[in-house]
Amino acid sequence: MTMEVGNHSTIADKYPSRVSDTPEITDRKDPVVYSSWTEDSPLTKEQSDFFEQNGYLFLEDFLPAREVEALRAELRKMLEEYREKDADGVIREPGGREVRSVFEVHKNNMLFKALSKDPRLTGIVSYLLGGDVYIHQSRINFKPGFKGKEFYWHSDFETWHVEDGMPSMRALSCSVALEDNYANNGPLMVVPGSHKKFVSCVGKTPENHFKDSLRKQEYGVPDNDSLTKLVKEHGIDTPVGKAGSILLFDCNIMHGSNSNITPYPRSNVFMVYNSTENRLTEPFSGQAPRPAYIAERGNG
Amino acid sequence: MTMEVGNHSTIADKYPSRVSDTPEITDRKDPVVYSSWTEDSPLTKEQSDFFEQNGYLFLEDFLPAREVEALRAELRKMLEEYREKDADGVIREPGGREVRSVFEVHKNNMLFKALSKDPRLTGIVSYLLGGDVYIHQSRINFKPGFKGKEFYWHSDFETWHVEDGMPSMRALSCSVALEDNYANNGPLMVVPGSHKKFVSCVGKTPENHFKDSLRKQEYGVPDNDSLTKLVKEHGIDTPVGKAGSILLFDCNIMHGSNSNITPYPRSNVFMVYNSTENRLTEPFSGQAPRPAYIAERGNG
Repeated sequence: MTMEVGNHSTIADKYPSRVSDTPEITDRKDPVVYSSWTEDSPLTKEQSDFFEQNGYLFLEDFLPAREVEALRAELRKMLEEYREKDADGVIREPGGREVRSVFEVHKNNMLFKALSKDPRLTGIVSYLLGGDVYIHQSRINFKPGFKGKEFYWHSDFETWHVEDGMPSMRALSCSVALEDNYANNGPLMVVPGSHKKFVSCVGKTPENHFKDSLRKQEYGVPDNDSLTKLVKEHGIDTPVGKAGSILLFDCNIMHGSNSNITPYPRSNVFMVYNSTENRLTEPFSGQAPRPAYIAERGNG
Repeated sequence: MTMEVGNHSTIADKYPSRVSDTPEITDRKDPVVYSSWTEDSPLTKEQSDFFEQNGYLFLEDFLPAREVEALRAELRKMLEEYREKDADGVIREPGGREVRSVFEVHKNNMLFKALSKDPRLTGIVSYLLGGDVYIHQSRINFKPGFKGKEFYWHSDFETWHVEDGMPSMRALSCSVALEDNYANNGPLMVVPGSHKKFVSCVGKTPENHFKDSLRKQEYGVPDNDSLTKLVKEHGIDTPVGKAGSILLFDCNIMHGSNSNITPYPRSNVFMVYNSTENRLTEPFSGQAPRPAYIAERGNG
């Protein structure tokens, strides 16, 4: 399938979505791990294979306690600051002032900027994505205790492709746990192996959809039958662990989280790395791109 | 504390709630297990002690598979039937026709009636509550896959006391799992040991509050500080297991559940047994009692 978009020449859309009334599950057309493993690789062979097969990798105790404490203190400061102050990239919980996410923390905060460039992390990311990378998006997600809302199933890539113009599956997210994650405080659930399928979603994206979608997802949502099929085949994994652990997950893995009524808050830093060979083009929806604080369009 | 209620003489309110602007945590004034254990008791000494200390008991494989299958088939029939048909005791999910609960299944359905009188079950319940019991309330809860809503923390007794006039803590719930329960499909979470404390809630109950409270709890909700204190001291248990398992839990244990975005539905039969020595009096709120399908006021 090809489509005319903006001033661009004709670009092949490898993963059409939100263009049909019936959903479809198709095969991934891109690699998952873009490097060949050697003994010098920053992951073990087992870790690299696990990521390739399952679409995610959980690394316990990645950051030492004192670094986590510094990041958590910074996060608390930001949560307080933005409770009152409005700014681009500050997303609130539906129906209140409670901060749900703050975007672009790799630019507007020194500590999180340093974290995003930490060679312990970028070494692994460059290995998996095969070469130079840049930050496509970064954010802190606050999932408060008592009233943390659910986040419905989705593939990040589906959104980044349709709404931001990311051409190929050559990006991944790194989530750094700033609090202990438990099975019961609304942790991230993933469908292992789902990254090798692309679930096209039905319906057309409304203009300026992003303002609501960051609070509550309504478009780009997979249908029940496709989800049931994926989960029947692959099950659901819930990688949880102590603060300081990191979760790397492929841009196309199906993931979501339940609500959190426990008193335990759950806050994570998300950093999305994209290959410099996979820079954004015009959105495949044909609509205006989302703002740069959600999807970096420059040199990152 | 004493209060005038309706036509009744003055009745001591052992557990005042929704009468003050500040919450309070007080000690339980009633036993948990009302019988002395002997070798003839229907629970082992360890099981009986576990219930006394933790306020709940999980019994795996309580019902054989063929009985569970029969109950599940019946449940599916009812779910279909009540999707269209309105009836007293049919509670829907907020904002839709989806059935959340059907009450009084021990009266209006032969299979669930037989289950409620099953001696395997009533033997244990009579032991724990010390003598004759009757059904105070029964219901089926449907927690559908994909969009099962959370149910916030609460003590059942707080509601039954304030809104129904249950004088003492001498009741318990039995939840029969009709589907497999997993950590990730919104299972019941309990705060073990919390049954020995009473958390009074703030605010006054509006008239006819029950119509909304069964869909979404807003009154009789414990405050964050009290919950945090209980959870810090006791933690959270999430007893999960296969279909056919049962969970017995004390009327005053703090419990709740998160949402369920997984494709796995979670349906349970709840039967609340009350001691015949603990029959309802006028509601301690001084307001009109809730309908009989929610709180049996006759001979059960």
